[in-house]
Amino acid sequence: MFTLFSIEGGVCAPQGFFADGIASGLKPEGQKDLAFIHSDTLCDIRAIFTSNRFRAAPILHFQRNAVERTNFVLINAKNANAMTGEAGIEDIDLILGHAEATFGNLVDPVMSSTGVIGVRLPKEKIMRGMERFDLTRKAPDAAARAIMTTDSRDKQVAFEVRLENGESFRIGAMAKGAGMINPAMATMLCFITTDAAVPADEMHTLLQACAATTFNAISVDGDTSTNDTVMLLSNGKSGLYRREAFVHALERTMHELALAIVADGEGATKCVAFEITGAANHEEAAVAAKALTNSLLVKTALYGEDPNWGRIASTIGASGVTCDPSTLTIAFENVTVYEKGEILFDAEQEEKAAKIMRKKAFSIHCDLGIGDGSFTAYGCDLGHEYVKINADYRT
Amino acid sequence: MFTLFSIEGGVCAPQGFFADGIASGLKPEGQKDLAFIHSDTLCDIRAIFTSNRFRAAPILHFQRNAVERTNFVLINAKNANAMTGEAGIEDIDLILGHAEATFGNLVDPVMSSTGVIGVRLPKEKIMRGMERFDLTRKAPDAAARAIMTTDSRDKQVAFEVRLENGESFRIGAMAKGAGMINPAMATMLCFITTDAAVPADEMHTLLQACAATTFNAISVDGDTSTNDTVMLLSNGKSGLYRREAFVHALERTMHELALAIVADGEGATKCVAFEITGAANHEEAAVAAKALTNSLLVKTALYGEDPNWGRIASTIGASGVTCDPSTLTIAFENVTVYEKGEILFDAEQEEKAAKIMRKKAFSIHCDLGIGDGSFTAYGCDLGHEYVKINADYRT
Repeated sequence: MFTLFSIEGGVCAPQGFFADGIASGLKPEGQKDLAFIHSDTLCDIRAIFTSNRFRAAPILHFQRNAVERTNFVLINAKNANAMTGEAGIEDIDLILGHAEATFGNLVDPVMSSTGVIGVRLPKEKIMRGMERFDLTRKAPDAAARAIMTTDSRDKQVAFEVRLENGESFRIGAMAKGAGMINPAMATMLCFITTDAAVPADEMHTLLQACAATTFNAISVDGDTSTNDTVMLLSNGKSGLYRREAFVHALERTMHELALAIVADGEGATKCVAFEITGAANHEEAAVAAKALTNSLLVKTALYGEDPNWGRIASTIGASGVTCDPSTLTIAFENVTVYEKGEILFDAEQEEKAAKIMRKKAFSIHCDLGIGDGSFTAYGCDLGHEYVKINADYRT
Repeated sequence: MFTLFSIEGGVCAPQGFFADGIASGLKPEGQKDLAFIHSDTLCDIRAIFTSNRFRAAPILHFQRNAVERTNFVLINAKNANAMTGEAGIEDIDLILGHAEATFGNLVDPVMSSTGVIGVRLPKEKIMRGMERFDLTRKAPDAAARAIMTTDSRDKQVAFEVRLENGESFRIGAMAKGAGMINPAMATMLCFITTDAAVPADEMHTLLQACAATTFNAISVDGDTSTNDTVMLLSNGKSGLYRREAFVHALERTMHELALAIVADGEGATKCVAFEITGAANHEEAAVAAKALTNSLLVKTALYGEDPNWGRIASTIGASGVTCDPSTLTIAFENVTVYEKGEILFDAEQEEKAAKIMRKKAFSIHCDLGIGDGSFTAYGCDLGHEYVKINADYRT
């Protein structure tokens, strides 16, 4: 048995981790834009990355160097260092070389970036900026703010996992991302620290397993980023590891941050769980659920708070999964509007459904009535603010 | 040899075809909402339909009756008769039975619908309305207006195809659809008439072949309609058929209507041709080109007239096609901004590209530098008007 306690401290909550964020001049008006995470002992590090074929330079750099142990991660916002070719990778070598020269005790330092695509990193600003880092500071809020782009708020969680014998380990994380809606500019980055003694050879598998129902259940629209990254740093300082408890804490950490990203979706006014059950299998359930999160028609109906269930049905029908109108059931929370071929959508039901849609967060349930596959994906609405943010992004 | 002449008359241009549209009370304020196409001799008819698994009742009705010859097509707007089950099909039987009783000389009449999903057809209004049809009228403009939903203008074309010996046949068509952006509510319908003596067994193949580069090059976003339909009616009255000439005219007809639909995309301010070349094969070229038409980030950048080529690159990278940053080239018409790994995007190039983006119609060219596959897809921007139309659709 084990118990999870929500605690303060973000990525600095686990023992031995330090972080801070400063303003290096990448963002205007003295906003923080450059962060580090440092561990005072060497960490195992594993990461999962975007499926985009044009992976950004920081990802290529990480993979090329086959980094497995480090004590330093540098993160900048405002520039993704993507589509910058070999020059972009050389820029990272130069910057991290400067970090090693400045701080002396770094081992295989790692870099991560988010921002506009196709522009070379402003190396000088970053190198001058990092000279002001104090690696003994625990300023998780500053770090979490520094990695934001169009995010409206920082995203952090931390848990203490207490085992039945009273011993405990911790996990902490910060993420950025202004919604599943368009990771291509507003890349999703997540950095997770832990003092649990996670076996290095399990880390990658655990990350992948937990991503499937968390970060991969929110994003995945046509615009998968060049930079998406989830990193796990484990320094083992607690000396403790209990697989079941750690997986639970990791999944919970990633789930909370994933929902925080959806809720902060660019211009979003509501967060919706699309629960698919009764699909032919798990894969088809995921396809249908994700199709709903990505449908422009569904997203604009959410924005309009219009219980237009026909758009939901049509999206499922168009998603390519096995389905049949005579076995499908659609409900807005507990209000069923279509049941196995029968339309239950009178004025009274419509008003009940509309009332649910006026909430900040709610669920839409679709039972395909075919098999046992289920999946829940999380999405948000699309309104005027989204257009404003994205039509004006660079200029 | 043959020559194509653009002519007036839409679906009534070919010999023996009649059409009109009236107001039956489905739309408010006396707007036309019910149309017919009639041929005074029996036509061969073939149609291609949506790939959505939840095909609307009119499509199921057509397929169940295996209609191959008819002289009457009834079309209503404002209600898609989709997700209405067996009852929806019975409604069509009742309505078309009333048409046969009213006009006496109908053979296997056909119905097509567009509008909101999940609401039973207002049968009485439609039956009362159709009693006012005069099957000897040639009022193609009225018919084309009656089938509109969120379209801002009617869409018609007609051609006379003159062979080198002076003989000629005609093809005419009308379509509706407010853009590739969301066929789920604004279904794409197209009705094509011809007096060419097209062999019945070629009609379906020709429709499919021509759709691949026309209607299927514009639509295909997550919201494929339950009702999408392209119908070809051929009465053979000209007694003439020349395959090459007919295919050319059919492709041209469908291409012009497809572009008209994109240009009239809901809230669209510009029409963009995404030309992919150098893909591994034709299929991958189509995947990449269509991904660009469906990317929210690309669409909002078009709206913002921002030559943010990084979003274009990222979308191609995320589309799953074979590609490499070191072989990719991206150009806004003749302004190359990224060439085989090299960023050519200085202030001067940016201003040149931005100038092109301020045009109503332009092309974006991406050479993947991998193979010989090419495809051009047509898209439009996404702006505030789109959100307005779709957030307010039903209410």
